[in-house]
Amino acid sequence: MRYSLFAGGKRIRPILCLAAGQAIEKRPDPDSNLLPIACALECIHTYSLIHDDLPAMDNDDLRRGKPTNHILFGEAGAILAGDGLLTWAFDLLSDSKQSTLPADQQLAIIHIIAQAAGSLGMVGGQALDIAHENQELPFATLRTIHHRKTGALITASILAGAIGAGADQTQQEALSRYGEQVGLAFQIVDDLLDVTASTEQLGKTAGSDASRGKATYPAFFGIDATRNKARAAVEEAESALVIFDEKADPLRAIAQYIYTRSH
Amino acid sequence: MRYSLFAGGKRIRPILCLAAGQAIEKRPDPDSNLLPIACALECIHTYSLIHDDLPAMDNDDLRRGKPTNHILFGEAGAILAGDGLLTWAFDLLSDSKQSTLPADQQLAIIHIIAQAAGSLGMVGGQALDIAHENQELPFATLRTIHHRKTGALITASILAGAIGAGADQTQQEALSRYGEQVGLAFQIVDDLLDVTASTEQLGKTAGSDASRGKATYPAFFGIDATRNKARAAVEEAESALVIFDEKADPLRAIAQYIYTRSH
Repeated sequence: MRYSLFAGGKRIRPILCLAAGQAIEKRPDPDSNLLPIACALECIHTYSLIHDDLPAMDNDDLRRGKPTNHILFGEAGAILAGDGLLTWAFDLLSDSKQSTLPADQQLAIIHIIAQAAGSLGMVGGQALDIAHENQELPFATLRTIHHRKTGALITASILAGAIGAGADQTQQEALSRYGEQVGLAFQIVDDLLDVTASTEQLGKTAGSDASRGKATYPAFFGIDATRNKARAAVEEAESALVIFDEKADPLRAIAQYIYTRSH
Repeated sequence: MRYSLFAGGKRIRPILCLAAGQAIEKRPDPDSNLLPIACALECIHTYSLIHDDLPAMDNDDLRRGKPTNHILFGEAGAILAGDGLLTWAFDLLSDSKQSTLPADQQLAIIHIIAQAAGSLGMVGGQALDIAHENQELPFATLRTIHHRKTGALITASILAGAIGAGADQTQQEALSRYGEQVGLAFQIVDDLLDVTASTEQLGKTAGSDASRGKATYPAFFGIDATRNKARAAVEEAESALVIFDEKADPLRAIAQYIYTRSH
């Protein structure tokens, strides 16, 4: 659990959670209540990487430039490390000693995250992804896989931070739109980098989508049109933030970063 | 997810949760609030069986007389079915539409279950169990493995039902003692049945502990002394219930059943 949690990573989900809280900032000290939530999100993301890398799934030896969990700890160890991280996320989220948030808000945050991470969200997206390997699939299915595999938890990270910071309904809806577009951009850029970046830059095996016959944005649209789609998603994400003041600048910067990142 | 959840099983954890609630019964209609909790407990138990049966873990082809999940759905499908069930448990536990319990009690229940299921409880117990396969180990370690792998979630099931039904501190402590002894008896009898029952009776491969070189109660103490230990644990469980009236009779009957069960 510790090895994979601290093997690097961009921490996009916890950062989005904290930045969403910062954009609202109605409470005196939102961050101390948001930190356990941010940590739980990274635990869930890390567990999903450990399980996705397993031989029975994507069979990856390298992640963030380091050996994947099962290479070091064996398959049983990796399965259990993932199970432990997923469970620990809900331990953190339900620990009343870690948070002064009202219990009904903590409960709402747990529910949003559980739905995004579960079979209707991330787990279901990975199942769809694996079921469609080496198959021709319509673009709508690729979009669904992206949304469930990546977009759902990213949107939930932002909403969890917003709710934890006391966002009203209008703010939650705007941040939800932002989250959907940022999640989409993130996955499109992931597809792009798999084609255009080196294994060294990525810290994982480049070109692995193509070699596994996975449907990707570049496979559908080519590299230039895919880049345009990523930019369009980032622009839509930024326009969803129009109701927020400069406290949302970190969210704006993250949207730009997602488009320009090289790994 | 559906296949393994409905492939039979004794439903011990949900039944213990509901029976603990029945022993307290301070609220007008505890069962309707306890049902989502009971279902979540069975989801967690089922996920743990799916993952334990995987080739990288115990490599079992048969469970409850039916092919195990990975035999039917492949390893990737089984890993994801387990992940989905674990996550769904927390979805159910945090769904405010499913329950009229106060949010702080729902949160406390989630926390108890997450701790019992996680790396300090069930997941950690399975990791210890696998790490010690084919090794001589002291009895204290076997006891720890049993407690974490089985006892922790059984105790949590009982406590969750008790808290959901409004148990006071004294009642919670008594039920916690009951849970520990019932969990211990359950695991001792599991060890016994692996030696004394047939594959047909068990619905899973008999003698698999011995063939995997697992430490068990019969391996330490022989069959007769092991049976005595199971009976002693059941008697201690029953004596923990002395403060309860006849509403705790189902809990008393379950303790007896655990000792006399044949599968």
